[in-house]
Formats: sequence, structure tokens, C-alpha cells
Amino acid sequence: MPNMSEDLPARIGDPLADIQTPALIIDLDVFEANVALMADHAAHLGVDLRAHAKTHKSADIALRQMAAGAVGICCQKVSEARALVDQGVTDVLIANEVVGPRKMMQLIALAQRARVAVCADHPEQVAALSAAAEGAGLTLDVLVEIDCGSHRCGVRPSEAVALALAIDAAPGLWFGGLQSYYGAAQHIYDPVARAAALATSLAITAETRDAIRAAGLACDRITGAGTGTFETEGASGVYTEIQAGSYVFMDVDYNRVRTDTNAAPGGFRQSLFVLSSVMSVTAGRAVCDAGLKASSIDSGLPVVHMPEGVSCIGLSDEHGSLDDPSGRLRLDDRVWLIPGHCDPTCNLHDWYVGIRDGRVEALWPVTARGKLF
Amino acid sequence: MPNMSEDLPARIGDPLADIQTPALIIDLDVFEANVALMADHAAHLGVDLRAHAKTHKSADIALRQMAAGAVGICCQKVSEARALVDQGVTDVLIANEVVGPRKMMQLIALAQRARVAVCADHPEQVAALSAAAEGAGLTLDVLVEIDCGSHRCGVRPSEAVALALAIDAAPGLWFGGLQSYYGAAQHIYDPVARAAALATSLAITAETRDAIRAAGLACDRITGAGTGTFETEGASGVYTEIQAGSYVFMDVDYNRVRTDTNAAPGGFRQSLFVLSSVMSVTAGRAVCDAGLKASSIDSGLPVVHMPEGVSCIGLSDEHGSLDDPSGRLRLDDRVWLIPGHCDPTCNLHDWYVGIRDGRVEALWPVTARGKLF
Repeated sequence: MPNMSEDLPARIGDPLADIQTPALIIDLDVFEANVALMADHAAHLGVDLRAHAKTHKSADIALRQMAAGAVGICCQKVSEARALVDQGVTDVLIANEVVGPRKMMQLIALAQRARVAVCADHPEQVAALSAAAEGAGLTLDVLVEIDCGSHRCGVRPSEAVALALAIDAAPGLWFGGLQSYYGAAQHIYDPVARAAALATSLAITAETRDAIRAAGLACDRITGAGTGTFETEGASGVYTEIQAGSYVFMDVDYNRVRTDTNAAPGGFRQSLFVLSSVMSVTAGRAVCDAGLKASSIDSGLPVVHMPEGVSCIGLSDEHGSLDDPSGRLRLDDRVWLIPGHCDPTCNLHDWYVGIRDGRVEALWPVTARGKLF
Repeated sequence: MPNMSEDLPARIGDPLADIQTPALIIDLDVFEANVALMADHAAHLGVDLRAHAKTHKSADIALRQMAAGAVGICCQKVSEARALVDQGVTDVLIANEVVGPRKMMQLIALAQRARVAVCADHPEQVAALSAAAEGAGLTLDVLVEIDCGSHRCGVRPSEAVALALAIDAAPGLWFGGLQSYYGAAQHIYDPVARAAALATSLAITAETRDAIRAAGLACDRITGAGTGTFETEGASGVYTEIQAGSYVFMDVDYNRVRTDTNAAPGGFRQSLFVLSSVMSVTAGRAVCDAGLKASSIDSGLPVVHMPEGVSCIGLSDEHGSLDDPSGRLRLDDRVWLIPGHCDPTCNLHDWYVGIRDGRVEALWPVTARGKLF
């Protein structure tokens, strides 16, 4: 029996016209093709896929990625990981630092019921992780995060050996390899410029790995890469694991990234939309009911997917301003938006509405929406 | 007994150091002073205050505003209003258009259990509202929204008389006055430029009111204005009701708006913060755990309130990059951020943590968070 609550965007079986707007839509055919395509890429490249769940925050999607061959998922936050483990995910890398006694305790509690690894970029954090893990009687898998170009978290490559040795020597910890993610390179649209940036980060990563091995440690796991760069890193022989996430959905910004053949990275197609309705047509203007509380604008405005000839010229809190030069839009018409940036857009919604053949086939909760801790 | 769930940011009575981050903090002393100050402003100006709840989406705050004299609240969405009515709010103006049969039915259902008014800017919408209200056997209060300068929703002023007459003639509807909100003027920082913009919108609004009256209709309620402009509109003699919302919290953008005496509008002070923790200090850089999923950047980056000498230079999904030239920040230090824009920031969080005298005094849910329909 479908849930009749007015807070749900739709019921299973509804025609598209009955979906409440604004709603977060997944075209299931395209989504499934993207999941399968990335599994093929990983197999062909000979690397593990550890899909990043910060994009979708959905247990339904994470479990489908793992069923298609992903070795596990990445999360950015302990609370995000906990929400997904609660729904059946069994293997999580927190591809980020975890700091502070309360979060550390939660990390350890999570590691007692799922396979959990975490990154470190500071000796104090290693000491705290060691004390917490040893106190709980478990061995925690800790990776050294290096700064390979984004200048955010991560030790200088020259400091990685000392930190890896500290992890290796710390009771309760096991040195699990290198986290080397070049976030800033994901969105370099031009393939030549992107390749040049990646050449530097790949050299840094390989040198760091070799230096750790020269110090006597195994360094078998090199993890990183995203939707914009995984083809290069996956083929490099340096990375053993890729962390792409956005490939399941794509967005305006990733659609602007070009490969050498002027294609979208990986050949992925847009599966995610914000469905909105026209709520005002006055004085030659049209306004839809999706504003920046429905589609994040940190990476730019959404692009109108349908109808043709309409464009989005601005979002305010609850309104999307549309340019409709042919004057075709009428009240309650549907406007399909491609979000500027998929990750923060998904985090605004409580539900994914999965559609196929003009009907609602699935309602998936955004399991870890708002899990900030 | 406090809820021990790890998904709560804090427990009542916790010292500030025990709040999980990132968390949305209200300085209760400042918040209460802002609520009282706006009540004083409205009384002095001789206008009603109908506080806009799109800012906070909190029943706790809405009920406090009404207890301090607000005649009711504004909402932007039917689902937002329903969430607040469910928690005891009794009087709501949907200061926006409601379009489509399903939303219309929900609006009517809400009007059967609270005092509800709505705006219109199209004859088709008036016809649909009339059919729905008449079918339910109730009389719905409908205001004409005019475009007084923002060029978003709202009829041309010259079309307002015809729409008001259509509402007046429609079974089940009662013409409730004019909605005239100049959103674009709220954020004109310079007082002279802002006053010039408002002079135009005030003239448009007064002329429209007079034309409606000349057509034989009472037009006793002129509602609009926001935190950046209410002092001018409230003193104009044109507006009878002001809709400010952000005054309870303030944000970076509103703190940049200046009055003739170079003060913040209304004398309101910052009561809202995103509390974050330092999670990485490497290579002369510091990173906190609040990114753009914790503090919206549509109106610019957050500003660091504490500690002094630290600034925010960028937000990515889960990270805040900090400039710390003196190198004072250590792992797990707290960084207090003033959000760039309060409304979409609050919509990212599940809880407000109310603090006073160094302790957690209140935990208020963000009642209508994510209520997009």
C-alpha cells in the first residue's frame, strides 16, 4: 500500500504528472546504465571501484553499486557512514579526517559492526585513533592522506613516510595505504589542461608510495580519483582504487568536462533532474517552484533539460526565474532542471523519485541527508 | 531525560565544547533581543508584523514571534505552512503563488484548520482557487501580488485592478489586499541607493492601492517589506504589514546593509552561527568541518566570528578552508562562522542549538526543513 502522506513526492505507479514538485528525479534506465558502465570501466582498468556515497547519500544506491561490483563505498562523515551501515552497507572508507573524542568514539563504534577505514594527516590524530582503537580492542585501517594538488587536507608528500611509520607503529592501527584525491582537477574542463595537472599529481603519488615502500612498509592500496579524472588515474598503474561518485547522476558542471574525443567523462549520461512546475507567468516572465533550496547553485545555475527553448536565468530561495522567449510556458507546466552540482542538490531533498517508462517505479530516501557530524 | 542519540548535536545542559559540529547555533540572548526589538519597531511604526518563517522554518521561533506580538507568519510553501500549523501556528499568509490541483487541495485542507491567506498573480489561478474553496465550503483570503521592482512573480501594477475585481467576484474568495514585496531592494547596501529604489516601489504600491479603491474595493491590507527595507516601508503610510524574517538571525549579507547612520538595519545583531571544528592543520593551512552542506554560499562565503585573525577563504562540500596567518589553530579548535545567507543555511540543518551563558539551553527542530512542496 503506497504511503499517502502529503510529504511524499509521489506514490509508486504514479504518472509523471502526479509527482509533487520540486522533486529529485532519477531516470532509472540511465542511472542503471551509468552504474554498469562504471563497473565495466573499473574491470577494464584493473582497479577497484569504491563509489563515493557523499554524492547520493542513499543506501539503495550504495547497495546497487556494491551489487554491481564496487568493493565498498566512501563517505566523508562518520554520521553519513553510520546511516548507510544502518541500512546494510558493510564496507566504508571515511575518505576524510575524523577529529575530536566524540567523533572518534562513534568511528570506533562503527568499526565494530562494519569494515571501516579512515584517513589521517596529523600525528595527533594518529595518537587519538590509536588510543581509541586499542581501548576497544580492535585494529583500525588508517590511510595517510597526502596533498597531491588541491591544497586542502593531506600532509605534504615529504611528510607521508613519517606519518605512515607512526601509524604502523601505533597500537590498534594498521597502515592501510595512501589517500590521494585531486579534487581541484575534477572540474578542469579542457582535457589537455586536466592531463597536465594529473601528470603532476600522479608523479607525486607514485613517489610518495615508493618512499613509503623504501621505508619498509607495504603500501598496496592507493585510492583517490573522481568522475572527472578516474580514466587517467585508473590507467596510470599508480592507483589501485577509484572513488568516483558523481558518475551515477552527472550534473551541469561534470557535463562540461571534456575528454580527448570531446565526450563526457566515462561516457556517463545525465540521470538526475529537479522536476519543477511553472508557478507564475506574468509580464512576459515565467517562474518555476524550484529555487536554491531545491537545486544548489554553488557550481552555477541549473540548465533546463525540458522543454526546449527555455533557460534558467536565476534562482532565489524558492523561485527559479526562466527565460521563455517563445512564451510557451503555461501555469503548472513541468520544467526539468539539470542541477549545477549534484552532491549538495541531493542533500536538499528527502526522497529520490525513480522513474521509468513514464511512471514512478521507486521512492528511495536520501538516507544520510543532513548527516553532517 | 536528554535524548542520547548520536544524531543530535547536543544535550540540554551541555557545555559548548560538547556540541557536535558542524551545528547551527542560536545565541539566545541576542535572538530574544532581536525578537523584542522588532516588536518595538512594529509598534512604533504602527504596522503589523507578520514574521517570515521561510528564514527559520521553526515552530518554536514562530510561536515566540507571535507571543511577542506578531499577528501571524508568512510561509513560501504549503508544506512549510502545514509543518508549522501542525506545531501550533494559527495564522499564515502564503506570501507566494500556489499552483496545481494537488497543492490547491492541500492549501484548502490547511485553511480548514488555521487562518490561511494566499497570493495570486494570474486569472487562471484565481479560478482554480475559487473552485477549490467553494467546493470545500469555505472563504479563502486571496491577495493580489504586484511586481513592485523585483521582476519575479506578481502582476504588472496596471493589471492589479482587474485581478482584484476577479477575486472579489469569485465564489469562495475574499479579496484580501496587496502583496508588494521588493526582494531585490533588501540587499542594496548603500542607504541612498536603497531609498531611491524604495521611493519607486512605494509610489507603485500606493498608486495600485488607490486604483483598486477607486474601482470600489476595500484595500486595507498592504503587506511586504523585509529586514533590509522595513523601516522605510513601515514609516511610509502605505504598508500596513511588514514581512521581515531574517532579523531574528541576521547574516553576512544583511550585516553589510547600512542605514543612514551606518548601522545595521533595525539595529539587529547576529544571533546565528555555524559552529565548526578544525579537522586538519597541515602545511600552514587549516580546514574546518563545515562545508557548503553546512553553510550556504549563494550569497557569499561565511565570515569567521571567532577566533580573531582567522578568515574563511573557501567552502567545498564538506570542508571549510581557513586562512590562519598567525598559525594559532590546532586540531579540534572551534571556529564560529556567520553564514553568508541565513535562510538556505538553516534549511541544511535538522536542529537549532540554543545557547546561553556557555551552556546548551534549547534544542529546537528545524520543523519545516526541506518542506519544498
